[in-house]
Amino acid sequence: MHKREIQDLLDLIRPKSLLQSISYILDWDQETYMPKEGISIRAEQQALISELIHNEATSPKLQSILSKYMHLSNGTLKKEFSQEENAILREVYRDYLQESRLPTEFVKHFKKVTTEALHVWKEAKQKRNFSLFAPHLEEIVRLTREKAKFLGYQDHPYDALLDLYEPNITTKILDTLFADLKERLITLVKKRSNDPKVPSDFLSAEISYEGQIAFSHKIMKDMGISPDTCRLDLTEHPFCLAFGPQDVRITTKYHPNSMIDTVSAVIHEAGHALYQLQLPKEEFGNPLGEPASHGIHESQSRLWEVYIGQSAPFWQHYAKELELAFPKVFKKIDWKAFYLAINQVKPSLIRIFADEVTYSLHIILRYELEKGLLEGSIEVKDLPRLWKEKMEDYLGVFPSHDAEGVLQDIHWSMGYFGYFPSYSLGSMYAASLWNRLQECFPDMEKRIACGDFLFIRDWLKDHVHSKGRLYHPLELIEKATGKPFSADDYLCYLETKYPIH
Amino acid sequence: MHKREIQDLLDLIRPKSLLQSISYILDWDQETYMPKEGISIRAEQQALISELIHNEATSPKLQSILSKYMHLSNGTLKKEFSQEENAILREVYRDYLQESRLPTEFVKHFKKVTTEALHVWKEAKQKRNFSLFAPHLEEIVRLTREKAKFLGYQDHPYDALLDLYEPNITTKILDTLFADLKERLITLVKKRSNDPKVPSDFLSAEISYEGQIAFSHKIMKDMGISPDTCRLDLTEHPFCLAFGPQDVRITTKYHPNSMIDTVSAVIHEAGHALYQLQLPKEEFGNPLGEPASHGIHESQSRLWEVYIGQSAPFWQHYAKELELAFPKVFKKIDWKAFYLAINQVKPSLIRIFADEVTYSLHIILRYELEKGLLEGSIEVKDLPRLWKEKMEDYLGVFPSHDAEGVLQDIHWSMGYFGYFPSYSLGSMYAASLWNRLQECFPDMEKRIACGDFLFIRDWLKDHVHSKGRLYHPLELIEKATGKPFSADDYLCYLETKYPIH
Repeated sequence: MHKREIQDLLDLIRPKSLLQSISYILDWDQETYMPKEGISIRAEQQALISELIHNEATSPKLQSILSKYMHLSNGTLKKEFSQEENAILREVYRDYLQESRLPTEFVKHFKKVTTEALHVWKEAKQKRNFSLFAPHLEEIVRLTREKAKFLGYQDHPYDALLDLYEPNITTKILDTLFADLKERLITLVKKRSNDPKVPSDFLSAEISYEGQIAFSHKIMKDMGISPDTCRLDLTEHPFCLAFGPQDVRITTKYHPNSMIDTVSAVIHEAGHALYQLQLPKEEFGNPLGEPASHGIHESQSRLWEVYIGQSAPFWQHYAKELELAFPKVFKKIDWKAFYLAINQVKPSLIRIFADEVTYSLHIILRYELEKGLLEGSIEVKDLPRLWKEKMEDYLGVFPSHDAEGVLQDIHWSMGYFGYFPSYSLGSMYAASLWNRLQECFPDMEKRIACGDFLFIRDWLKDHVHSKGRLYHPLELIEKATGKPFSADDYLCYLETKYPIH
Repeated sequence: MHKREIQDLLDLIRPKSLLQSISYILDWDQETYMPKEGISIRAEQQALISELIHNEATSPKLQSILSKYMHLSNGTLKKEFSQEENAILREVYRDYLQESRLPTEFVKHFKKVTTEALHVWKEAKQKRNFSLFAPHLEEIVRLTREKAKFLGYQDHPYDALLDLYEPNITTKILDTLFADLKERLITLVKKRSNDPKVPSDFLSAEISYEGQIAFSHKIMKDMGISPDTCRLDLTEHPFCLAFGPQDVRITTKYHPNSMIDTVSAVIHEAGHALYQLQLPKEEFGNPLGEPASHGIHESQSRLWEVYIGQSAPFWQHYAKELELAFPKVFKKIDWKAFYLAINQVKPSLIRIFADEVTYSLHIILRYELEKGLLEGSIEVKDLPRLWKEKMEDYLGVFPSHDAEGVLQDIHWSMGYFGYFPSYSLGSMYAASLWNRLQECFPDMEKRIACGDFLFIRDWLKDHVHSKGRLYHPLELIEKATGKPFSADDYLCYLETKYPIH
C-alpha cells in the first residue's frame, strides 16, 4: 500500500488502465472469435474507448494532482517519496506529457490518415506496387515529423519517436550499437551463408490441430503458466494481450505442415505472457505494474523462443517428448537433427521469417531508412531503390518486387515509426540476460535438458518482471546483469553458436 | 436518416448503446473463455462501464435536449414528429426516467447488497438451507419496495418493477391473465399427469461434442442465421447477447447424453438471436433498433424452441436428418417417437426443466409470492411454507428441501423482482404469433416438414423484429396478430396439443 497522497493519484489513474484493458478485450475478440460482420460496430466501440482513455490521460484533475508533487514544466519533484513512489510519479508524468503534448485534433487526423493508409497498403502489397502507397506514406511521414515536434526532442526528431517505445533510447545510442553490430553481422552472414543444407523434411510432417495444441499446452505448463491465468487461441498473426495481472491471452497460428512454426509462436508469446503474469499484481493500474518497454517485452519473448527454445538442451528434452506424442512422425529423429534443422543461417527477404543471425540486419536497414525520412535526408520515392541496395549490401539478396521488399511490413501504414529498433534491442537485451543466467546457473543446460525451466521463470521474475517500470530499459538490464548494456553479449552469443569455420 | 434535431439526440445517446454492447462483450468473455483468475479485474471493468453508462443515461446534456421536445414533468411532446420519431422520444424519455429516478447512492447500495446476497444464495442453495439466505432476501425486499417508490406507480408497487421488463404491463393485467390460465392449466395438468411413460431411451444416447455442434449449426443455418453475424459457443447456462446488429453470440451447454437438451437450447437462443439480427440495423443505438421487451424477446425464443422445435412436422424433417448424421444411434427411430418422447407432461419441481404445460404454473407461483412480498401481505420467513403449499396445489408435487423449492432460482438474489412474468408472457405472445402464422400460411406444417423455415423468419422480421420499440408489447402483438392479446391462443394451443382423453 502506498502513501495516502500517492494512493489518491493511483485511484485517479486506475480507470485509464481499466479502459485500456477493455480495449484489449475488444482487440482480442476481434482477432479470435468475432463474426465477420461485427467489424463496423467494433470500430465504433474502439473509437469510443480510445476517446475515453485520452480524456482520462489528459484530465485537468490529473494535471492538478501531479502539480502538487512536481514542477510540470520540467518534471522535477517538489517532494521526495520512496524510490518506488518517485518512479510512479516520474512515469505518470511521462505518460501525461506524451498524451497531452499531442493536440486532440492532430491525434484524430493522424488516426484518420493511417486508417486509410492501412487499407491502401494492403492493396498495394497485394498488387506489389509501391507507387499506390507512396502518397499516403508521404503524408504519414510529414505528420510524423510534426508529431516529433509536438512531442519534443533534443538532438534528433527520431528520438521523440524512439522514446515512445523505448524510454531514454536515442538515435545516438542506436548509432553506436548498430554500427558495431552491422559490421560483425555482415561478416558472420557472409561466412555462413553457404552452409550446406541439413535434412529437415521431418519438420514438414502433417500434424493434427489437436496434437499441436496439446503439445503447445505442454510447453506452456513446463514454462510455469497456468490455464487459470492464461489461455491460448488461434489467430492469423500470433500476439499476446494482458487483460489484467491474472488474465493473459496468447495466440498462435496453426500450421498443419509446420508444427515448429505453431509451437515457436506459442513459446514466443508465452514469454510475453510470463512477463505480464509476473508483474506485481498489487500494482496493477500504475507504472510499477506495467512492463518497462517494448524492447524489454521483446527480450522476454525472444529469450524463451530463441535462446531457450532453439537451444540444444531444449531439444534434448523435447525431441523425446515429440517422439512420445507423435511416434509415427518423429520416430528416431534425435535432438541433433532438430537442433540443426531449426538453426540454419540463410539470408532471406522477409523479416518475420529471418533466422537469428540475419534478423537484426533487417532491423538496421529499417532504422536507417526511418531516421533518414525523419531528418529529411531520404525521400519516400527513393525507398524501393534504397531498400534493394541495402538488402544486397547487408544480406546479398534483393527483392524482385515491392511486396517482398519495402511493402512487407504493416508498421509504416499505421504510423509506427520508431518501433522497429525495439525488436533488435529485445534480442540484444535477451542475450545479456541469457549470459547472466549462465553465470548464475552453471548447470543451466543440464536442467533445461531435463525440461526444468521454473528456475529461469523465477529468476526473470526477481530481476526483470517484478520491477515494472521502476527503471528505464538500459538501467533495468544493467541492474539485472550487473554490468552496463552493450552489444557484446549478443554478438558473442551469435559468434559462439554460429562459429565461422 | 432522421430529422436533424432528432439526429442530434441520437448522436448524444449513441455512446450509451456502445458502452452497453461493450459490457455484453465482457459478460460473454467471462462466461465463455476467461481464465478463472481473471474475475477480479473483470468485476472492476464491469463496474467502470456501468458507471459510465449511468453517467451517459442521466447526463445534464440529455436532460437539456429532451426538454426541448417534451415536458419532462409528464412526458407530453411539445412538438410532433413522425410516428417513428415520436416513439424515439417517448422511449428515450422512458429510459431517462428509469435511470434518473434511482439515486446513484441507492443504485450502488443495491448492487452491493445483491452482490453479497448472490454469494450467500449459492451457499444456501448448496446447503439446502433457506434460513442462511433469508436475512439477505429481507433486505433485498425492503430495498426493492424503496426502489418501487423511487420509480413511481399508480396502483401497485409491483407495477413499477413489471414496467422495467415489460412496458405497460400491470398487476391488474396479469391478475386477469393469470387467473384464467391458472384454473385451466391446473385442470389440464391433473388430467394429463398420469399419462403413461413413452419410450425415450434413444434420447440418452451418447453423442460426441463435434456431432452435436455440427447438428446445431445445421439447424441455425436452416433458420437463416449466418456465421458471418452469429456464433455459437459453450457455457454453463445458455444465453444470447448482441454486441451490435451484426454480431450476436449465442451459447449452449454440451450434454453428452442428452443431445436434445443441447440442441433445444441452441434453437431457443437462436430465436433470440434472430430477433436481434433482424432489428433495423440503421437504427442501432436508438430505441427503434432495440427489442420491445423481455417478454417479446422470450416469445421469439419460445416460438422457435417449442412451437416449432417441438412440433410434429419439425421432427418429420429432423428425425431423418438425425438418422443420416448418426445412423448407428437413431436407426429406424421415426418422427413420432421423437415427438412423443420430447412432449411428455410431467409435473416436476424445477422450473427450468418444466414441460410446456406445467411451465406457466411455476411462473404464476412466483408472481403471487413476489406481489405479496411487495405489498407486504407475505413475509420472507413464510416463503418456504407457501412455496410447498402452492406447489402441491398447482402441480401436485412438493420439494423435499429448499434447493429444489424456494432457493432454486438466482433471480431474487440479484434483485430481479418483476422479471418472472416475462417468461410466461413470452410463451403466451408466442402462441398468438403462432396462431397468426397458421392463418397466414395454411401450408405451414408441410413447409416445416420440408425443413423450410425462412418464410417464418421473414414474417417475424416484418411483423415483430423490424418494429424495434415502436410499440409497447401488447400493442405490438395486437398489430402483428390483428386482434387484442389474450391468453386464449395459448390455452387453445395447449389444450389442442395435449387433449384431455
